[in-house]
Amino acid sequence: MKVAITSGKAEGPTKLNAFDNALLDAGIGDVNLIKVSSIIPAHTQIVELTKLTPGDMINCVLSYKSSNNPGDLISAAIAVATSSDFGCVIEHGGINEEPENIRKEAISMAKYMMEVRKLEIKELIVEEINHEVIDLGAVVASLVYLGD
Amino acid sequence: MKVAITSGKAEGPTKLNAFDNALLDAGIGDVNLIKVSSIIPAHTQIVELTKLTPGDMINCVLSYKSSNNPGDLISAAIAVATSSDFGCVIEHGGINEEPENIRKEAISMAKYMMEVRKLEIKELIVEEINHEVIDLGAVVASLVYLGD
Amino acid sequence: MKVAITSGKAEGPTKLNAFDNALLDAGIGDVNLIKVSSIIPAHTQIVELTKLTPGDMINCVLSYKSSNNPGDLISAAIAVATSSDFGCVIEHGGINEEPENIRKEAISMAKYMMEVRKLEIKELIVEEINHEVIDLGAVVASLVYLGD
Repeated sequence: MKVAITSGKAEGPTKLNAFDNALLDAGIGDVNLIKVSSIIPAHTQIVELTKLTPGDMINCVLSYKSSNNPGDLISAAIAVATSSDFGCVIEHGGINEEPENIRKEAISMAKYMMEVRKLEIKELIVEEINHEVIDLGAVVASLVYLGD
Repeated sequence: MKVAITSGKAEGPTKLNAFDNALLDAGIGDVNLIKVSSIIPAHTQIVELTKLTPGDMINCVLSYKSSNNPGDLISAAIAVATSSDFGCVIEHGGINEEPENIRKEAISMAKYMMEVRKLEIKELIVEEINHEVIDLGAVVASLVYLGD
Repeated sequence: MKVAITSGKAEGPTKLNAFDNALLDAGIGDVNLIKVSSIIPAHTQIVELTKLTPGDMINCVLSYKSSNNPGDLISAAIAVATSSDFGCVIEHGGINEEPENIRKEAISMAKYMMEVRKLEIKELIVEEINHEVIDLGAVVASLVYLGD
């Protein structure tokens, strides 16, 4: 399996459009996203996000936050822990929380998932995005399953 | 890809049953729906909903509203914009909102999605359903992916 | 199609980790769950949950409750009704409700789904789990689609 990690942020005229714009900013706006929970198979390669075919059905772990309160700080994060066997993925986010805390909590949750599975962490990657809302903003962070 | 657009409304003894009855009314109650977001591939044909095999896994964009407040007007809408390339789908809904506004907002959001992608709209279709709640009602509108 | 019915309960340091631990307790923590609604095809066999390959994409009907209020009783249930044709699945749950009522409501909703489809019930199975929260707990009940 190949997976890519990405994130995006945007403003928009409606909540749905801001979300859509953030997906476009993340490079995953032109596909059909199917939300899944939270494991990457053994021998998964983490690669750069490639150009996806519009309309494809794409499995992903997705973190999403939006706000229409100007000045709000919105955050989305994905943490991925790999091992010599399979790995774990965490989605996390917040509104008006310290980005550093969001990051720490995401890492801590991913570490805990590996611990309870007795998997030794080989690599731990966090993708995090923050956005200060102007009018109506959205952030997304995602791990995208790209197939073999 | 072939897709169908459909909608349904119903009452039911519980929220879940009202939802299920509305899906049956829409002709998609006997399958397993998997919610996806919101793009139709290039060369998609919009067709009449065919009889689906019970228990099939069916991807769909789904708008759903329910209420157990007698007299409430519940609305669900799907707007689909096509181009010579790929197209965009919006789900929208509301409770006690002007159906005409729901429709206008759905159209406006679909138009905006096409605009930010620089896609020229060939066709814009809106499916909309409204229901005045008697005891416990539900409405659904859906774009259903039927495969090739 | 083969399906398995399972449930699990757990505590955890965060809501997400408690959920993950409950999935592990149910034997479905190491896969990617895709939520679907609520039909089993004709000729479905209900089997014991087998060991799943970590990272596999697995369709399921999922009931999930969590609470961080010590002493809360959290409940999740799945009811499955089969016929000589296809069958119906209900997810149900509650917080501080009588487990017996949760079970009765799940059965009643599954029966009603079969009734409106004019399907005669051959077998009706309920899987139910209850947990009294210590610090932060979660319960899950699930029907898992295992393929052919």
